[in-house]
Amino acid sequence: MIVLGIDPGLATLGYGVLKKENGIIEVLDYGVVLTPKDKSLPHRLRMIEDGVSAIIEKFHPDEVAMEELFFTNNQKTAIAVAEARGVALLTCVKKVPKLYEYTPLQIKQGLTGYGRADKNQIQQMVKLFLKLKTIPKPDDAADALAVALCHLNTSRLSGAFLM
Amino acid sequence: MIVLGIDPGLATLGYGVLKKENGIIEVLDYGVVLTPKDKSLPHRLRMIEDGVSAIIEKFHPDEVAMEELFFTNNQKTAIAVAEARGVALLTCVKKVPKLYEYTPLQIKQGLTGYGRADKNQIQQMVKLFLKLKTIPKPDDAADALAVALCHLNTSRLSGAFLM
Repeated sequence: MIVLGIDPGLATLGYGVLKKENGIIEVLDYGVVLTPKDKSLPHRLRMIEDGVSAIIEKFHPDEVAMEELFFTNNQKTAIAVAEARGVALLTCVKKVPKLYEYTPLQIKQGLTGYGRADKNQIQQMVKLFLKLKTIPKPDDAADALAVALCHLNTSRLSGAFLM
Repeated sequence: MIVLGIDPGLATLGYGVLKKENGIIEVLDYGVVLTPKDKSLPHRLRMIEDGVSAIIEKFHPDEVAMEELFFTNNQKTAIAVAEARGVALLTCVKKVPKLYEYTPLQIKQGLTGYGRADKNQIQQMVKLFLKLKTIPKPDDAADALAVALCHLNTSRLSGAFLM
C-alpha cells in the first residue's frame, strides 16, 4: 500500500510518499511544492493543484493522510494555509480512493506515544522509523513524512476518515 | 461585461451574476451553492467546484469579484470557509480571465459611501441599485450581488486585482 502524507501550506506544501509491503515501510519520495510570493493567490493555488496532481500521478497512492490545521495566532496565515489545504483536498479526492486527516496531537501521539513531543523529537522519530541517514529537509517534508508514518503506524480509527 | 460576484462559504456559497451594458446594470441570476453538513469535507469541496463551474459555464463571466475573508472569533468556521474559498478561487482562475477581491469594508464603502453601514443598509442598496422588488434571499446571495455591484460601481483600483 502506498500512502501520500501532506503537510498543507501555501508558500510550502510538504509531501512524503511511503510504501508498506509485508510490514516493511519504504520511502518512495519526499519534498515540497513551492509557490512564489510574488504570484497572485489564484495562480499559487493552481500551482498547488498542479504539484499535488503530479505527485499523485507519479506514485498512485492508495490513501492520503493530511495534517489538520491547528489554530494559530496569525489568522491571516491560517486563512492562506486553509485556502491551499482546500485545493489540496480537492485535488486528492478526485484521484485517490481514501483520505484521512490527523491533528498535530494525533501525529505526535502516533509517533512518540505522547502528545507533548517537540518538533525535533518528531523529526528524530521519522528518521529512525524510516532508517534515514539524516533528518529530512525542509521541515515541511519531514512533517509530511510524519503524518504518512502516523497513518501507517497507528490504527486507522485514530485518524478521521474523510472519504 | 458580465461579472460574477461570490460570497465564499462551505455550507452556503452565495453568487450573483450582473451584466453591464451601455451603463445599465441587469441581474442575470443569483442564488447559492449548498453543501450538506453530513457529507465529508473533500466531498463538499468538490460540490463547491461543480457548483461554481456550472455557473461560469452558464454565464461566461468576464470578471469575478470575490469577497475577502474577514477575521472572525470562530477560527474553525474561518478555516472551513477559507478551504471553500481556495477551491472557488481555483475554479474561477481556470475559467475566467480576471479575478478581483474586495474586503467587507470596501464593499460597504463602494455601495453606501461609508464603512459603517450595517447588513440591512447594504441589502437595501443592492435592492435599490438593481431595481429589485424585494431584498434578495438568502443573505449569501445578497452579499454576492453586493460584491459584484461594488466591482461595477467603483473604480477598479479600489479592489485588489488578483490576476
